[in-house]
Formats: sequence, structure tokens, C-alpha cells
Amino acid sequence: MTTEPTTPELTTSAITAKDRKEPAFLFSEKQVAEKSELARRFLDNRTRLNENVDKAGNFLVKRFYNLDHNTYLEGALPAKYKELMGVIASVCLRCDDCIYYHAIQSYRLGVTRAEQEEAINVALIVGGSIVIPHMRRAYELLAELYV
Amino acid sequence: MTTEPTTPELTTSAITAKDRKEPAFLFSEKQVAEKSELARRFLDNRTRLNENVDKAGNFLVKRFYNLDHNTYLEGALPAKYKELMGVIASVCLRCDDCIYYHAIQSYRLGVTRAEQEEAINVALIVGGSIVIPHMRRAYELLAELYV
Amino acid sequence: MTTEPTTPELTTSAITAKDRKEPAFLFSEKQVAEKSELARRFLDNRTRLNENVDKAGNFLVKRFYNLDHNTYLEGALPAKYKELMGVIASVCLRCDDCIYYHAIQSYRLGVTRAEQEEAINVALIVGGSIVIPHMRRAYELLAELYV
Amino acid sequence: MTTEPTTPELTTSAITAKDRKEPAFLFSEKQVAEKSELARRFLDNRTRLNENVDKAGNFLVKRFYNLDHNTYLEGALPAKYKELMGVIASVCLRCDDCIYYHAIQSYRLGVTRAEQEEAINVALIVGGSIVIPHMRRAYELLAELYV
Amino acid sequence: MTTEPTTPELTTSAITAKDRKEPAFLFSEKQVAEKSELARRFLDNRTRLNENVDKAGNFLVKRFYNLDHNTYLEGALPAKYKELMGVIASVCLRCDDCIYYHAIQSYRLGVTRAEQEEAINVALIVGGSIVIPHMRRAYELLAELYV
Amino acid sequence: MTTEPTTPELTTSAITAKDRKEPAFLFSEKQVAEKSELARRFLDNRTRLNENVDKAGNFLVKRFYNLDHNTYLEGALPAKYKELMGVIASVCLRCDDCIYYHAIQSYRLGVTRAEQEEAINVALIVGGSIVIPHMRRAYELLAELYV
Repeated sequence: MTTEPTTPELTTSAITAKDRKEPAFLFSEKQVAEKSELARRFLDNRTRLNENVDKAGNFLVKRFYNLDHNTYLEGALPAKYKELMGVIASVCLRCDDCIYYHAIQSYRLGVTRAEQEEAINVALIVGGSIVIPHMRRAYELLAELYV
Repeated sequence: MTTEPTTPELTTSAITAKDRKEPAFLFSEKQVAEKSELARRFLDNRTRLNENVDKAGNFLVKRFYNLDHNTYLEGALPAKYKELMGVIASVCLRCDDCIYYHAIQSYRLGVTRAEQEEAINVALIVGGSIVIPHMRRAYELLAELYV
Repeated sequence: MTTEPTTPELTTSAITAKDRKEPAFLFSEKQVAEKSELARRFLDNRTRLNENVDKAGNFLVKRFYNLDHNTYLEGALPAKYKELMGVIASVCLRCDDCIYYHAIQSYRLGVTRAEQEEAINVALIVGGSIVIPHMRRAYELLAELYV
Repeated sequence: MTTEPTTPELTTSAITAKDRKEPAFLFSEKQVAEKSELARRFLDNRTRLNENVDKAGNFLVKRFYNLDHNTYLEGALPAKYKELMGVIASVCLRCDDCIYYHAIQSYRLGVTRAEQEEAINVALIVGGSIVIPHMRRAYELLAELYV
Repeated sequence: MTTEPTTPELTTSAITAKDRKEPAFLFSEKQVAEKSELARRFLDNRTRLNENVDKAGNFLVKRFYNLDHNTYLEGALPAKYKELMGVIASVCLRCDDCIYYHAIQSYRLGVTRAEQEEAINVALIVGGSIVIPHMRRAYELLAELYV
Repeated sequence: MTTEPTTPELTTSAITAKDRKEPAFLFSEKQVAEKSELARRFLDNRTRLNENVDKAGNFLVKRFYNLDHNTYLEGALPAKYKELMGVIASVCLRCDDCIYYHAIQSYRLGVTRAEQEEAINVALIVGGSIVIPHMRRAYELLAELYV
């Protein structure tokens, strides 16, 4: 006899390509840009710089971008939680552009402000006070997005 | 007329202490330790080292531990997603002990293997190949937990 | 007979809340801002962003800020050395805002320029040439503070 | 009999001071600044801030700068590959100023755009999507340098 | 008239898939394992853990591994320099397993000990004394590989 | 009339080589090794690995070691505080070997356990919960050193 937990329902694992699909955004990037000036400036600059990267046509970069895109699709986890996980990773690793990108994506998927704050709290406790300046700038964006 | 999105339901923000409560674990640490030898060794070592920290009685450490505990309670986000966020933060910042801790907590809260893998995928794409050795060790634990 | 060192005076350890008190600043933030234009811009921006964070009223953030504040009080170590340690941590982890904050706090507590430079040197040797751009910007601030 | 590889030619190791010499740059910093506005602004700002550091006359900083300079001289590895290695280290550790510095040095030593892109690709795969914003800014510089 | 450098030969950029091919290794992993006990233990452990990852069959992990493999092929830069760049990235980001992997790959491609040391020197100056413990362990491996 | 603080005594800056001297250790490494088994194992391993590095005779490594040594001499800041700063930098950057080294050096210079704990607290608040596993191992050493 064993006391170990039996968890048949937890063990179905394999994530296959067919389980994945594009998430349904509630808002377009254009709508976000119209609502928040900080978001607009970020998105415009990102578009401009990405066009320059695209022009170079480096095929490994293209494949990396493609893989990156696939990572955040609907799958075993809802896309909105994966975008929030992108927020946390970005706060922990302290990249303002990355925080902006994933906070905007989260917003577009219907993540509430309270959820964004809780996600940032996880990053704050894991990453420490060194992430505070990034948290402050994230809150500045949140104040414009959630009015 | 404005095209900006109206999102009243998204703007209720303040997270208060009363909204938070201890999550309901499906499995105890003891059950996890009985199922996985890797988990058992990790938990035993962690307990032993924490006892030594407790003995020192440093009050700032105690307060930090308390705040850390509060961060992962049920709140605006379900505890299970916050533990998964702990996994991502730990993989991105490359701390094996932290990965083990949050992967075990996630398991105890009913997170499936497919969900754990997807969370690790976010960390892999954000953090790059430098996280692969940690991912390998995480998969070693997952293989023991999800049988 | 044993050769091991007997160090009774070193082993009195426990740091208690009562041993801690607010440090006595030689200069106010206002005085620093009047002396250095770089400091003024930093402090103004920090105040503005913190007000926005305060408005959100997230209670875990408040508790983290409170714990952060307590860490740098007078205690077993003089506050001025702990602020300098904040400088080192900030240079090693490469956060300009954090460097500015702790360099200003150190200055306010009477830390000399030579002491600030020596602290930065520890961070330079530990953290390597990747910290040089941050060191340069720190020296720009020091040049305005210590005239 | 042994299957182990015999590699006499690989084992001559010691790098001595005499093997090292200044690399022959194809272009001066002035020429780079005239070609690229982004490079010019970076170089001007760097010069200004370094003059301030020099004025402080901290002898450990001076020695660190000297050692830093020596690391990239012609030696067992051609200087151009070491500057490219500086690019990779800087992208992995995510320091825009450092990326600019080493990308310019690489250009001055005749590194092609394709070589710079491949080096950045190594950093992208090792460091993950968190380095993408830095990669974008690096590509912006490359577009001005390689016309 | 312009003083700007004309560099037609530097501007041919696009890296295409067809320019890339598998590098020609001088030594097999088996030969390396027979020569160095440290390498053997590392390679055995890596194989064991990778088999476990493979068994999970996560398709994003597979694609990441594939992209990772492609990054180090012969291309605009010789594979041996890209493996050395992998060494530098790994020392800067302080991952012992990654250092071992790329140092072994570099050795298999004919990189000399002096070249490995110079590459590590770049990482030491960029990354600072915090990388020294990893450098020490790297030298321990080099001592076994280059006899 | 000006409100700016006049701080003549703070502005004497230049740190010169002559101001620096070897610190006076209260305990030898041998005494530390006899008192703490954890310290003994660390010191023995470090010595063994350093002998291997020394044998390679890489002159840039030698110069880096020399500069590293000079950084922690008595100077504008007492050596004991600089060793404690080494502890903080090492906890923030999460390097167990480095923590052990500087905690032992601090102990040898008469730093008390309470001072070590306060220094670690600064690193804990700056670096976040990700440093806790390293803090635990540091406390394990402190428990052996301060009996």
C-alpha cells in the first residue's frame, strides 16, 4: 500500500501544435495607442525599429521571432496568463520595453489592473527593490490604460 | 466621439488584505516527498537550512519571509497561477532551488504537467538557451511528480 | 587544547527592532536638489512616479516599501555604510535610478567623495567593465554633489 | 594503444605580453562619427563622461581601464574577433552603451555586417527575447554604419 | 567631397540558409570523454537529462533546440569562433554547464588553449570578479583537455 | 547668499596608492578552517583550483587578480567594510563561492555576526527572494563561524 497521490488527470501532458491558436484580443494596438500616450510612443518606436530589423532579413532572427510569437498562443495555459507571465519575466529581468509590450498585450486580452498589479508583486518580491524603478514606470502605463 | 475602449469592469483595482486567503493544496509536502525522491531531498535540505535561519531570529528576514508568503495567497489572481509565475521568474533568474520550490507548490495546487511545461516555455523564450540546464533539471523533477 | 579562535565579543548577534532608529541626515533632499541639477531632476521624477504608485494603494507594495525603509536604518551597521552598500548593490545590478538614490542618501549622511569612489571600485571589480557606463553616470552626479 | 586525440599543436599555451599589439583600425572614431549620427552622439557623450572620470584621477579606475584596453589587443585571437566577443557579452548582459562601443570597434576593424549579425544571433539565442530591444537598437546603428 | 569611408565589400549582408553547414569536428564527443574525466561526467549527465526532455516531446522545446543548433553552424563567421562566443556568453552569464558545453565544442573544432584563455579573458574583464569561480572551473576542464 | 550646503571636509577626494595598505587580520585562513568545516572545504577547493589557474600563467588573469586584491586594501574605507560590501555584491549577484570568500574575509577582520546579517539584509531587500537560497547557505556558514 502506498500513500502517494494518484493524479491521472494531471498527467496528460503533450502540448501539440493543433492545440494552439491565436488569442482573441479585446482591443487593437491602435485602440491602445489612442487611449495611452505612453503606449502610443512605445508602439510607434517599436514598429519603426522592427521595420529596420525586418529589412535586414536575417533568417535566424525571423525564426526566433516566429518561435517567440508561438510561445504566447492559446494552449494548455490561457494566452492572458502567458502574457502576464511575460510581464513577470520582464520585470524580474528589468527590461522596460519588454514590460510595456507584455502589459499592453495583457490589457488587450482583458487582464484587469488588479491582476497586473498582483503579477508585478510576484516580480517585486522575487526580484527585490532593484525592480522598483521599472515597477514605477509600469504603474505609469497602467494609470493611462485603466481609466 | 471617441474610439477609445470603455472598460469599466477592468478598472476596479484595489487589492485589499481581506481578498486574500490561504490556497487549498491538493497534496501535502509529505505526499510530494513520498512520490518524488528529488522533491524529498530538496524539501529536507530546505527545512534543515531554514531552521538554522529561524534560529538566528533576524527580524527583517522574518518580515521578508512573511511578505513573501503573502504574495502567493489567493487574490486577484488564483494562487496556482502565481506559483506558476514563481516558476517562470525562477527559471528566468536561473535559481534551481527556487524552481524546485515553485514547481512543487504548483503541483500541490493542481497545476498540470502541460501547464508547467508551457510556463517553462515562456521562461525559455524570454531567457534564452542559458536557462536550458535549469529546464533540464526541472523536467527531471516533473518526470517524478507526474507519473 | 585547541587553536580555534575564541571570539565571545563577536557572537552577540540578535538585531532587534529597538536597536534601529532613523539616521540623522546632514542635508535635506531639497538642499541636494539645489546643489545638483542631475539630483534635482532625478528626485522630481521619482517623486512624481511614486505619487502615482501611492495612489494605486497596493498594500503589498506599501509593505515592501516599508520593509525597504527599515533595512537602511541605523542598526548593527551605521546607516551611512548601508547606504554605500546600496550604491554597490545598485552598480553591480546596474540600475541608474538606484545608484542615484543611494549615492544621494550617502551624501546626505556625510559620506565623502573618496568613500563613494571606493565603494564604486568594489562594484567595478566585482561587476566588470559592463558597469562602466553606470559608473560614468555616477561620477557625473558626484562631480555636482562634491564641489 | 590509446584512442585519445594527440594534439601537440593545440597545447602551446602561454599568452605573453610581447605577443600582444595594438590592432590596425581601418577607420578612425572621427570617420565613424561622420558616417553615423547615432555613433557620433554616442561617442561624444562617452568622451564627455570619460573626461569627468579622468579628472577624478582614481587610480584603481585607471588601472581597470588599462587592463580593459589590454584585453582587446591582437593576441592569440585576432582583435576583430575579440571586439565581436565584446558585442556578444554586451548583448547578453544587455548594456546599450557597451553594444555601441564594441559594434563600432568591430566596424573599425573591418568586421562585416553579416559577421555582426551572426554574433548578435549567438547572443539572441543564448540570452533570449529579453535582448531583442537591445538587438533592435544595435540594428539601428548597423543600418547607419553599413551603407 | 566626403570623408566618409566607402566600404562596398563590408555591406554585402544577407545570411541565407544555404550559406550554412555543419562544422567539421576534429574530435568526437566520445574522444573528448575518453580524454577528460570532467568532460565525460558532464556529457553523460547532459545526455541523460536531455533524453528525459526528449521523452516529454514538447514541440516548442524541440524547435528551440533546433534553432539553437542552427545558430552555431558554419556561416558568415567560422563555427569555431561562434563556439568561442558561446564560451564568452556562458562565462558572462555564469552558467557552468554552458561553459563546459561550449568549451568542449570549441576544443572539438580545433580551438587552442591560448584562444580559449583569451576568450575567457574577455568575459573576465566584461563580467568582473564574480565570474572567477566559473573561470577556475573552466581552467580545470582546460587542464584535462589540453595535455 | 546661498542655501547650498558647504562641505569642504567632504571634497578632499583623491585616493592615492600610498593611502592603501594590507589590512590586519584577526584570524588566519588556517584558524578559520579549523573552526568551520564548511569554510575548510571551501578554502581547500579554492586553493586547489587557484593553483591550476596559476600554473597556466595567463598574464591578464594575474593582473586582474592583482587589481582585485588591491580593491579591498585599507583606504578611504576600512577594509572590513569593503569585505562586507563584497558580501553584498556576491549575494546580489548570487555567487555562493564569492559569498563564502567575503564572509570569511569579513570574519577574519573582526566583523560581527550582527553586522554580517545586516549586510545580507541589504542584499535581500535589493535582490529579492531569489537570493534566499544563497542567504540560507550563508547563514549555515555564519552558524559555524560565530560559535
